[in-house]
Amino acid sequence: MSEILPPRIIAEEEERKTLRAISFGAEKWLYRPIKCLDNGFVYLADYAGSDESVTQAARVSYGKGTKKINEDRGLIRYLKRHQHTTPFEMVEFKFHCKMPIFVARQWIRHRTASVNEYSARYSEIKDEFYLPEPSALKKQDKMNKQGRNEELTDKQKHFILEVLKREYENQRKMYKAFNEIELARELARVGIAVSNYTEWYWKIDLHNLMHFLKLRLDKHAQYEIRVYAEAIARIVKNAVPLCYEAFEDYVLDSIYFSGPEVRFMQSHQIPVAEAVIRSLILVEFGNQRETEEFMEKLRKLKLVFTI
Amino acid sequence: MSEILPPRIIAEEEERKTLRAISFGAEKWLYRPIKCLDNGFVYLADYAGSDESVTQAARVSYGKGTKKINEDRGLIRYLKRHQHTTPFEMVEFKFHCKMPIFVARQWIRHRTASVNEYSARYSEIKDEFYLPEPSALKKQDKMNKQGRNEELTDKQKHFILEVLKREYENQRKMYKAFNEIELARELARVGIAVSNYTEWYWKIDLHNLMHFLKLRLDKHAQYEIRVYAEAIARIVKNAVPLCYEAFEDYVLDSIYFSGPEVRFMQSHQIPVAEAVIRSLILVEFGNQRETEEFMEKLRKLKLVFTI
Amino acid sequence: MSEILPPRIIAEEEERKTLRAISFGAEKWLYRPIKCLDNGFVYLADYAGSDESVTQAARVSYGKGTKKINEDRGLIRYLKRHQHTTPFEMVEFKFHCKMPIFVARQWIRHRTASVNEYSARYSEIKDEFYLPEPSALKKQDKMNKQGRNEELTDKQKHFILEVLKREYENQRKMYKAFNEIELARELARVGIAVSNYTEWYWKIDLHNLMHFLKLRLDKHAQYEIRVYAEAIARIVKNAVPLCYEAFEDYVLDSIYFSGPEVRFMQSHQIPVAEAVIRSLILVEFGNQRETEEFMEKLRKLKLVFTI
Amino acid sequence: MSEILPPRIIAEEEERKTLRAISFGAEKWLYRPIKCLDNGFVYLADYAGSDESVTQAARVSYGKGTKKINEDRGLIRYLKRHQHTTPFEMVEFKFHCKMPIFVARQWIRHRTASVNEYSARYSEIKDEFYLPEPSALKKQDKMNKQGRNEELTDKQKHFILEVLKREYENQRKMYKAFNEIELARELARVGIAVSNYTEWYWKIDLHNLMHFLKLRLDKHAQYEIRVYAEAIARIVKNAVPLCYEAFEDYVLDSIYFSGPEVRFMQSHQIPVAEAVIRSLILVEFGNQRETEEFMEKLRKLKLVFTI
Repeated sequence: MSEILPPRIIAEEEERKTLRAISFGAEKWLYRPIKCLDNGFVYLADYAGSDESVTQAARVSYGKGTKKINEDRGLIRYLKRHQHTTPFEMVEFKFHCKMPIFVARQWIRHRTASVNEYSARYSEIKDEFYLPEPSALKKQDKMNKQGRNEELTDKQKHFILEVLKREYENQRKMYKAFNEIELARELARVGIAVSNYTEWYWKIDLHNLMHFLKLRLDKHAQYEIRVYAEAIARIVKNAVPLCYEAFEDYVLDSIYFSGPEVRFMQSHQIPVAEAVIRSLILVEFGNQRETEEFMEKLRKLKLVFTI
Repeated sequence: MSEILPPRIIAEEEERKTLRAISFGAEKWLYRPIKCLDNGFVYLADYAGSDESVTQAARVSYGKGTKKINEDRGLIRYLKRHQHTTPFEMVEFKFHCKMPIFVARQWIRHRTASVNEYSARYSEIKDEFYLPEPSALKKQDKMNKQGRNEELTDKQKHFILEVLKREYENQRKMYKAFNEIELARELARVGIAVSNYTEWYWKIDLHNLMHFLKLRLDKHAQYEIRVYAEAIARIVKNAVPLCYEAFEDYVLDSIYFSGPEVRFMQSHQIPVAEAVIRSLILVEFGNQRETEEFMEKLRKLKLVFTI
Repeated sequence: MSEILPPRIIAEEEERKTLRAISFGAEKWLYRPIKCLDNGFVYLADYAGSDESVTQAARVSYGKGTKKINEDRGLIRYLKRHQHTTPFEMVEFKFHCKMPIFVARQWIRHRTASVNEYSARYSEIKDEFYLPEPSALKKQDKMNKQGRNEELTDKQKHFILEVLKREYENQRKMYKAFNEIELARELARVGIAVSNYTEWYWKIDLHNLMHFLKLRLDKHAQYEIRVYAEAIARIVKNAVPLCYEAFEDYVLDSIYFSGPEVRFMQSHQIPVAEAVIRSLILVEFGNQRETEEFMEKLRKLKLVFTI
Repeated sequence: MSEILPPRIIAEEEERKTLRAISFGAEKWLYRPIKCLDNGFVYLADYAGSDESVTQAARVSYGKGTKKINEDRGLIRYLKRHQHTTPFEMVEFKFHCKMPIFVARQWIRHRTASVNEYSARYSEIKDEFYLPEPSALKKQDKMNKQGRNEELTDKQKHFILEVLKREYENQRKMYKAFNEIELARELARVGIAVSNYTEWYWKIDLHNLMHFLKLRLDKHAQYEIRVYAEAIARIVKNAVPLCYEAFEDYVLDSIYFSGPEVRFMQSHQIPVAEAVIRSLILVEFGNQRETEEFMEKLRKLKLVFTI
């Protein structure tokens, strides 16, 4: 990645001045890639705005000018707590990302971003595939059908990685052979795996980015995209520290009680013994999974106790 | 595809009545798959609205009630010609589609649709890969770097197909072996090719669908997605015949002259001999590609002649 | 509103059959306006899909065919509880609405809908203004700067309504005078109030509609738009009863604890006396408003008691 | 507008440095309002990217690094000519705008922007109304029902302005009286005209901004919004000169021939005498308006002549 350089136009020290809002936290991440998985990366390629841009936008609503910085935190927290989302759209981030195709496929489902991706029709594909770390190889989760959890044996892991390496080697040879007879690139790639690396510029506003992070930092997100979400979260946390703190406090760390849960708590004594409450909930809810979700919240809030 | 049936709820003849606008052209395509490529299909799974819904929406703008049918055509053509796009958003289509992953990747770039896709995290992947027809195998286009054009020899085609078949067989074995040791499905699929088939429900309004068709019916679109666009166009043409006719007349069949081309024509005698005009254009435009594009338009309009 | 009729094309009994999914609850609301405020209305003008369309879309993700109806409820509740939002996009509603301009201005901020509005450039404005019911006239709320709460005297209410009536009469005369000298309509309306009625077709998918309802059914939404949200909610509740029930249980009736609140509960004994807890929270949170919000949740869940 | 200042955070000379792409043309417009109509303005409040950001994004598609500046122009023109729109989404602009409500209502129909608007529920409305220049007062256009064209007499203009002034004075008094009895602000404003000024932050990417400009610079757009579009175009032209030039050449200055027009030209001798061609077109097209539109294009390209 040695070719990643600041844009040409600002090469001269003299020319680096701007009148725009600056986030010093964002500046320090510009063009500094964070390695993700074996061959991927994410780096901040551009941004607009800062914590202050959010409060500035909120304040236009009530027709008042810029306030003191120490009031910004309270306002940002208020906005986030009450889901006043539009001021967070005033901050924008652009990332350059490189990731396996199957990660890109999950990522692109977030429709509110702008994307320019590497074209395997126009250019030869990259000779890079994702080979998981042995520690990332797990068995299918029996409960959560979209996940992995149990350990595989070292022998099984070795087998998987050897099969994948051989498979990738075959695909490289196939692609090379197809290129040699000048098969159209858009066809030469059809046999190539979804673990092949692609890259793109991805531009998104802070409100939509926080939604992306909420979903992709979640423990149910696939590990491989979570790695990218964590890298991006690290950058965003520095770029807009007040917004990120509010996001953690009011989104990431929050728990919510559904209507049925609220009604159950209103009509039963809480806190209560775990052994008692579970069967009660199960009877009322008639749903094992929802019962367990409810129990987990009660435990988290220390509203159940073991006798 | 024997499992494709009308929704349960309308099984009874008695219950099939609706007060909604009906498009008889759309009705006849409901649940009737059109085969696409070797293992794919598209069928219409739901819709809302008809040609009449477009004119009804346009007429709310000027506060008049429903007019006679024979005025609808003129109004729809007027709307399309003048790019009054919002009335076309009042019609909605939902398709069930099955296609190779690399086609799905181009398709999903149209962000203004709703999508629910098969999950390779949740379920085992389908044992189906795209194997091109021999006639679809072509060499890389030298001019258009995103295309194919020249013929390959039969021997080369045979070689390509044999390599792909063997490769797909390897991938099937790999996936089976990974499943046997219960590797999480979200990992078992990483070595599988982008030609593997996926499927989804895809719901989009007519305005955005026409934009999709404009781009994906284009001769520069990859052949494999064009096959799907053509199938969808066939359905849409029956479902909203007046809108589709206007789309053909004012979008698909139109040609446009750029500002520089307009200015050139204003200052030179047209029509003119091909031999003379090309060099003149090239000098003024200083761009070989743009010159050829201009020449093609002039030829199409019979505004150049050969001496 | 006598001109509201089913679309022409389905006038014949014979021709009312469709193979599409039908919602009987939606059918009964088609073309049946609900009166809103003094001169407005909302009616369902078209729709696509039903509860079943949501589960059908969800099931494509795990590659299984249609299940029994009695499993649909559980699946819809699961999707809603876990914020799997895309299947809800598969249902679409189109409403014809008439409302004051200031209501339309709040409404249009929901960007994910399709809109065709009456044009005051093209046609003469409607001679209808919103005159509030006396009971809707309230004083400015001192706490919530976006609201109203305290009662006005009958004399004050009378004064307000008389002033508004006279003002509207003036505006009618002005508009008439401007039209008589043939001032362009796009100018003749500039002095007309934001309480003047406009109308539009509004088409939106169920996911985005539930977001609209969440915000506009809220007690902090302006009363005048809440009236429309309530009318729409009534229709949606009949059209997709399982989805609406899940929306009520997991969105409308839910309460959530923020990260700071969760941490507070983890480190203090709950339930606890109201007198004790408020001052503790205030000290830790340092924010009067957030303290009151927290207290309200604890009270709602009966986790505080008065000594 | 003396309160418009650069954001607090960059007050110190030392702190104005950024590693981001800089557009010198944009920098000179930051916080420099352009007056629009009698009481409105537009100024650039933030931006991200430059011409170079567009080519950088395009180049990721074919996997090549940054090229020389003198190749950027050709690439940008190619992208625009072939409607490769996504690279233009990589540039972002944020404007602070103040305009009459009826202008805001047209503006907000562009859904792909982020907006934070002044709230008449939260704050007292501004005591400013739009009073047209006498030269802007025209009669209703008979042909184009959405426009104005013919002149009014001076006496008529004087009458209109006097009526509007008196009306605005009434509305001011009404609002004052309502505030004095503390009527909720969200109600106090219902009698206020759509010419009352509001303001907002408006953030949009370059692709969608060019679409806005195309529609709102058009001669059919209402004069009052065109004034704002022209101010924005002036800023954008300096901020991304290569993109704006391509936008002018390939969008603003282009003319297009529809399918029926193309087919007509292919089957008739062009150029041709005006007197002959009009009746021929009319017969074939059967539509007076479309005939005139076609004639205008032929005249513009000097493909008709008068005998």
